[in-house]
Amino acid sequence: MTVNVVRYQYQEAVYWGVIRGDAITPVPGDYVTTQEFIEQIDLAELRALSDPVVALSDVRLLSPITRNQQFVCQGANYRQHMIESGMDPDAKDFNMIFTKAQSCIVPADSDVIKPRIVDFLDYEIELGLVLKKGIHSPITVNENNLYEYVAGIVIVNDYSARDIQIPEMQFYKGKSFRTFGPVGPYLTLLDKDTIGAIKDLKLRLTVNGDVRQQDSTANLVFSPAETLTELSEVQDFLPGDLLATGTPAGCALAIPSPVKQRIAALLPESTKWKLFKKVQSKRSQYLKVGDLVEASIRSADGSVDLGVQRNRIVDED
Amino acid sequence: MTVNVVRYQYQEAVYWGVIRGDAITPVPGDYVTTQEFIEQIDLAELRALSDPVVALSDVRLLSPITRNQQFVCQGANYRQHMIESGMDPDAKDFNMIFTKAQSCIVPADSDVIKPRIVDFLDYEIELGLVLKKGIHSPITVNENNLYEYVAGIVIVNDYSARDIQIPEMQFYKGKSFRTFGPVGPYLTLLDKDTIGAIKDLKLRLTVNGDVRQQDSTANLVFSPAETLTELSEVQDFLPGDLLATGTPAGCALAIPSPVKQRIAALLPESTKWKLFKKVQSKRSQYLKVGDLVEASIRSADGSVDLGVQRNRIVDED
Repeated sequence: MTVNVVRYQYQEAVYWGVIRGDAITPVPGDYVTTQEFIEQIDLAELRALSDPVVALSDVRLLSPITRNQQFVCQGANYRQHMIESGMDPDAKDFNMIFTKAQSCIVPADSDVIKPRIVDFLDYEIELGLVLKKGIHSPITVNENNLYEYVAGIVIVNDYSARDIQIPEMQFYKGKSFRTFGPVGPYLTLLDKDTIGAIKDLKLRLTVNGDVRQQDSTANLVFSPAETLTELSEVQDFLPGDLLATGTPAGCALAIPSPVKQRIAALLPESTKWKLFKKVQSKRSQYLKVGDLVEASIRSADGSVDLGVQRNRIVDED
Repeated sequence: MTVNVVRYQYQEAVYWGVIRGDAITPVPGDYVTTQEFIEQIDLAELRALSDPVVALSDVRLLSPITRNQQFVCQGANYRQHMIESGMDPDAKDFNMIFTKAQSCIVPADSDVIKPRIVDFLDYEIELGLVLKKGIHSPITVNENNLYEYVAGIVIVNDYSARDIQIPEMQFYKGKSFRTFGPVGPYLTLLDKDTIGAIKDLKLRLTVNGDVRQQDSTANLVFSPAETLTELSEVQDFLPGDLLATGTPAGCALAIPSPVKQRIAALLPESTKWKLFKKVQSKRSQYLKVGDLVEASIRSADGSVDLGVQRNRIVDED
């Protein structure tokens, strides 16, 4: 069985707790960062925790990933999403990696602020991997040892300002605005017996109740093991760092066909981006103030359940 | 007068010190991170420090930026570099922002490891700004209050694997390999009276003694004040965080003319990147094992001097 934990505020103090239904059992100890929590907990001890219990309704849930941790992301990593973008998922040309600013991390139920300068605000539901072991040199991760490197999983919504992200080419700025990274509500802890669940989790995102994204992690192009192996050749990770594994098809962003992309490349830059904005402005799927975005990730039988994120889109100030 | 400080290891312990010539005066106190150092020091007190003195030759210099700090970078931010890339610096279309992994930060004199999979290893000398005050909401930075936000400056070399960075579009991975971010040797602390020096510092990079990059910060397109103002609308910063302000012309990377770029865009992806690699393979400027890269930043009169970085290019393992 997986164990769902939450980080929460209760009467001015911050705690970690095991959540079952609407009841939270506080975890003894003081863990300032996700790294400290991951390094010190024992899954068997968490499973054995029972009383005392706090009601979910009496606490304020926080992000289970603290803002000191790295926030690394994969782009274009679901088969159908790649096909729609004119890419061949079987070619596996490269594993696209970028980051989001840590300051965009917010609790799962946060309001998402639509900046005044942003017209094309988009959603991206993603499975987030939370690292267990520090990585300081090249390693080989496979299905058998993945549980040694991944402590658990979370829902991430990689909110994106398309009018900044796409014309500016580098994704960082357009994806890093404050509130653009809700994480949680639960950190679902995995072990050797439950890590396999990662291979077929159902992602589902709705806007005002309409389903926009629905896919399974079975359709990931670069698997968690492949991605961690590759990134270990490049950089270090600390326990508690977050790796978001990309989003399925169904975003508001309209990606032109490969043929249209080649024609657009012939245009002067300013004309190209005017055309881009004109095409996007016809997409009613972009988020508007007042919209409610709900995101969930769970196994088909419900035995693994990362909870539900609910974000209301609000105006700046 | 500016104050140059170093972070160094001496007999197994780590210290901060004021450096004058080859003599280091340790700064009393224990500062684990750059943030702690920046928050607790007083420039007048540092200036007044004299004895006891340690010889530079007796210590191992470390990066003055610790790896907990953010490493945010600007792309294409020097006039001549933009013109060569087919961009119009006067249009100021956008301020390109990306990040490097914190684990690539190494001392100024580190060997730089050329990964086995990388053929096109390039250099990029940059002026790095080290933040003084935390930024948690939109602010307006201008020439008059810049000293309140920038504690000091450092040399950064933004080493880049062009064969990964360019075809994979997102710059992060190709710029984040371990050792790809030498910082220092000095952190040159500035105040209200000396911050103006930022406006005309001479950057100079040589490879085996041949000058490759030479320019002045007078030719920056987006100024530090403009960039901090813009980024404050997006994300938070903590004291000690690093903002690298982009590199001048003169890198090994051959950027095709705008016309050739448009023609290349018509080609299938695989053909396009084969062509890219063929063009780059003719550039003898790319770094080879054994090359020595030296980078310096100083004012014309030498009164502001950030020191010299020396990196030997070495093989993996």
